[in-house]
Amino acid sequence: MARPATNSRQRFLEATQTLLRQGGLSAAAVNDVVSASQAPKGSFYHYFPAGKTQLVAEALLLYRDVVADYLNEELGSSAHLNARIENLFKRVAARMAVSDFRESCAVGAVVLDLSSQDEELRGLCNNILESWVESAATLLHELSPAARKPAATHLVQLLEGAQLTARACGNARPLKQAAAAFSIYLASFTEMSA
Amino acid sequence: MARPATNSRQRFLEATQTLLRQGGLSAAAVNDVVSASQAPKGSFYHYFPAGKTQLVAEALLLYRDVVADYLNEELGSSAHLNARIENLFKRVAARMAVSDFRESCAVGAVVLDLSSQDEELRGLCNNILESWVESAATLLHELSPAARKPAATHLVQLLEGAQLTARACGNARPLKQAAAAFSIYLASFTEMSA
Repeated sequence: MARPATNSRQRFLEATQTLLRQGGLSAAAVNDVVSASQAPKGSFYHYFPAGKTQLVAEALLLYRDVVADYLNEELGSSAHLNARIENLFKRVAARMAVSDFRESCAVGAVVLDLSSQDEELRGLCNNILESWVESAATLLHELSPAARKPAATHLVQLLEGAQLTARACGNARPLKQAAAAFSIYLASFTEMSA
Repeated sequence: MARPATNSRQRFLEATQTLLRQGGLSAAAVNDVVSASQAPKGSFYHYFPAGKTQLVAEALLLYRDVVADYLNEELGSSAHLNARIENLFKRVAARMAVSDFRESCAVGAVVLDLSSQDEELRGLCNNILESWVESAATLLHELSPAARKPAATHLVQLLEGAQLTARACGNARPLKQAAAAFSIYLASFTEMSA
């Protein structure tokens, strides 16, 4: 199969993101990443001299930016708040549908694989989840300043929980249900401030 | 260390539950289960002739009942609805604290490890999540009949998302935040029916 001319480093990172989304840390063994990337194995330790932890950390940082773009594009649009929430969950559903609901949030899958030896990655995952909360809080601008961070925290938890249950049932319904529930939650704040 | 006189089958299942809660399917290899169980390896295939899938399925069904008990005890108490929700999330937090927030929902961790070869376990996980929704729906008896199932669905998604984020930060705060958010969500229904 012809591939676009990306360099090996990029291929390793893309393959890692996909494997993390499928099965977390345990799915992203270096040999599996090399095999999935179709990049020359000899170059792996040139790009990632510190091995798997470095590879996973860099892939998670790229994944952080993908999700931040989704948040900015969907929650940052000019649509009504409820429509923006619905569009965000629809976007996540569309991405999951590409893999027939077999790939979900890379950070979520890594978090549920962490052992006590993975403190560095645990801290990184926590920072990424918090960065999404910060991004979302800014974009929920209709809410009072005090309500934005709790609402964004709720949104990020719900995105994780809904992706997990969507993988269990293999369809987008949990993401629709989560969007509807979050809009009901939000209504209490927007009514208060109205 | 002295152990209570449980039989080998029980020990295998308990060890499997713990390993699933720590790292999902990938953490529960048969050799690791045998080693963690301190039960004689020779008896493993006597109790689980179909191997790992049978072992994991039976462990998940036991775990289903543990969570159903939590739901019945906390959501089924005579306390006010908001107190019952708070108690449920506190109970989950207390259980996670025992492992220093390194163990979470066994079903959630398995779901994020599923591959396309694990259709049987995916169906089982989905059934278990739905059984919790059914249990919770009955126990949210203050809500109108039409609101109970959506609310219970939201609760189960949020329990999964909050446990995941609690593992990332290593403390109970996400579970407290989830309980507070769920109470805000619930208020819209109880106000409507008041």
